[in-house]
Amino acid sequence: MEEIKLKGKNAKDAAKFLNKASSQIKDEVLKCAAEFLIKESTFILSENKKDLDLAETNGVKGALLDRLRLNEERIKGMASGLLQIAALEDPIGEIISMKTRPNGLSIGKMRVPMGVIGIIYEARPNVTADAFGLCLKAGSATILRGGKEAINSNKAIVKVLRAALKKQGVPEDCLQLVENTSRESAHAMMRLNEYLDLLIPRGGAGLIQAVVQNSSVPVIETGVGNCHVYIDKDADIKKAIDIAVNAKTHRPGVCNATETVLIHQEIAHKVLPKLSEKLTERNVELRGDETVCSIVPNAKKAEKEDWDTEYLDLILALKVVDSENEAIEHIHQYGTKHSESIITENYSSAQKFLKEIDAAAVYVNASTRFTDGEEFGFGAEIGISTQKLHARGPMGLKEICSTKYIIYGNGQIRE
Amino acid sequence: MEEIKLKGKNAKDAAKFLNKASSQIKDEVLKCAAEFLIKESTFILSENKKDLDLAETNGVKGALLDRLRLNEERIKGMASGLLQIAALEDPIGEIISMKTRPNGLSIGKMRVPMGVIGIIYEARPNVTADAFGLCLKAGSATILRGGKEAINSNKAIVKVLRAALKKQGVPEDCLQLVENTSRESAHAMMRLNEYLDLLIPRGGAGLIQAVVQNSSVPVIETGVGNCHVYIDKDADIKKAIDIAVNAKTHRPGVCNATETVLIHQEIAHKVLPKLSEKLTERNVELRGDETVCSIVPNAKKAEKEDWDTEYLDLILALKVVDSENEAIEHIHQYGTKHSESIITENYSSAQKFLKEIDAAAVYVNASTRFTDGEEFGFGAEIGISTQKLHARGPMGLKEICSTKYIIYGNGQIRE
Repeated sequence: MEEIKLKGKNAKDAAKFLNKASSQIKDEVLKCAAEFLIKESTFILSENKKDLDLAETNGVKGALLDRLRLNEERIKGMASGLLQIAALEDPIGEIISMKTRPNGLSIGKMRVPMGVIGIIYEARPNVTADAFGLCLKAGSATILRGGKEAINSNKAIVKVLRAALKKQGVPEDCLQLVENTSRESAHAMMRLNEYLDLLIPRGGAGLIQAVVQNSSVPVIETGVGNCHVYIDKDADIKKAIDIAVNAKTHRPGVCNATETVLIHQEIAHKVLPKLSEKLTERNVELRGDETVCSIVPNAKKAEKEDWDTEYLDLILALKVVDSENEAIEHIHQYGTKHSESIITENYSSAQKFLKEIDAAAVYVNASTRFTDGEEFGFGAEIGISTQKLHARGPMGLKEICSTKYIIYGNGQIRE
Repeated sequence: MEEIKLKGKNAKDAAKFLNKASSQIKDEVLKCAAEFLIKESTFILSENKKDLDLAETNGVKGALLDRLRLNEERIKGMASGLLQIAALEDPIGEIISMKTRPNGLSIGKMRVPMGVIGIIYEARPNVTADAFGLCLKAGSATILRGGKEAINSNKAIVKVLRAALKKQGVPEDCLQLVENTSRESAHAMMRLNEYLDLLIPRGGAGLIQAVVQNSSVPVIETGVGNCHVYIDKDADIKKAIDIAVNAKTHRPGVCNATETVLIHQEIAHKVLPKLSEKLTERNVELRGDETVCSIVPNAKKAEKEDWDTEYLDLILALKVVDSENEAIEHIHQYGTKHSESIITENYSSAQKFLKEIDAAAVYVNASTRFTDGEEFGFGAEIGISTQKLHARGPMGLKEICSTKYIIYGNGQIRE
């Protein structure tokens, strides 16, 4: 596909500029971009309206339509996001380690830009400014391929952001939008090894799996979270209930929300009545195994699929387990290696859970909702990695950088 | 493919054991495996003889046949490799960072096993023991798929290594060999996302590209090295000649050997006569651009392909450049992001080269031959990554591990 190849080539050239760019110039671009977004908000909103009108004509509604919608407030949010990124420390050039070998070579590991980063995402125009800001600060050129439903909004935002690049004397091709939103354009990006150093899919499970299965460009898999809270026999009951309720209901539509609560049989009778009452008050539909249903009258019977499902909704699966081992086994069988929490006052149970659970974030006595770049202190986040390669868990600026070894010698040769 | 799926499933189960295994038990297995390799060397050599006989019948000779060949010495080398790995520090469980957030959550980053690592390689039976040792110490189960020419040797070695696992009470499926050596078995491994966490190809450019292009399992690309030495106008001539000769001739068949020497025009007349004399003494065939040919009578004319070629042989391409910028441009156009060296006494030229060159290892005044796990002080190496994701440059034990976040709370919920 010609468009993708050309954009790849342009991005590679722009990346060379960014590789040498100072923190100051990158931050100037970000501040200018924030200013331009506000200044051009009328233009952006009128382009967004085209997308909204078309979406409504096509019968899009609810959360999907809401994600597509921009307003003054949301544009201000995008702008302040860019200013926040400008205020973060530049990750590039940091020497992570430096050691001198017996032969006198000093070998250092330096953080460097990834090069060109591709992002494939769905109809969320706010991702456009956000991904641009993070990649730019991390010294990489960006190729964005958003969902077709947001194409007018994305074109408008990218136009404004490129104007900011130009204003600051930085190549506009540091940011490019793929205007062909066909399946073929996404596929062409997945095979663009010559120019793309990294591809990040942001969106639902279907999108992510399509990219993982078809990309020859290195991918960081993000997002799907079938998270669990395990209430151990030695749990503090108040903490257990507060955390389970928070993990489910604080923001049910996101990946770090809990989907299943596992409860040790010895404590089930003490926890379940109060827990189910609080959840029901918050309109959570409960689906339990047999034991749960025998204790909680309003719980529906859970099917096997319930253990597998990322509801992203006010629905919670509940299961009583015989032991911590059974809880760990259940999590390994059904979990997606995202965020898992044990509630216990028992030292050994806590340590066992921390050691044995294979997930990006493993908690003791806290809500799974904390798996988030801001909450982890990264200042910003480009997604949450659920793979084991390169970065795991919330990804901030450092996680979208690479490293290289720099070696200072004085004539060493290998004997 | 049933064999691959079953081995994947078995490996995943074995990996759970390894995730909990102590350093002591892993080291006991490695020591026992070393002992068994020596004890069973007659068996291994007789199986290796089958491979050698067949290879000779099929007309295999030279370096290929040599790589396939085992002898007492090489088996001792494999055993001592395992003992070296046993003596290294266990990378698993190390807390790389731990910070407390304002809300009291302590967030730590812990090094953990990758899980299941697949290795696809060619007819080098020594890789079999080596890859097993590194993956085991890093807490991962291993599925090996070696070249068909070495199948009898590999089966013998794996049998011996599995006996050591069994002797120490560790699941034998921590190490499995794919016995079907068809193209289909390699392809099935590349799609085994359900069970494989990482796939590492070790071998020539063809193998590596086949894996990069077809794998949906995360890959670390290793090995291809079109490396350069750039002799700057301010080079110390003795250092320049020693390093260029070493980088080319010390071991020409490996990926960190230099394939092209770039020389600044201002110093070309001083460097080339002496350099070409020393190289010619060592039987290096020289291929130069026009300027080089006008100075060095025995240099052949270089074609465009020469700049692109990883000779892995006693052949060197030579080019005179107008400036450091031209050298950097040439390296970015033709290099493979492996190892690049500048020879200069000029501070600014050195710093510019270190900053601008995009490669795994960037040197000042040293031979590219140092890009190696042992030389970098890692104790052992599973390959040299030339990609930017996860690990770049020589990969030791730490580089084949993952991380996870562990979070200690005391009841925190997200407000």
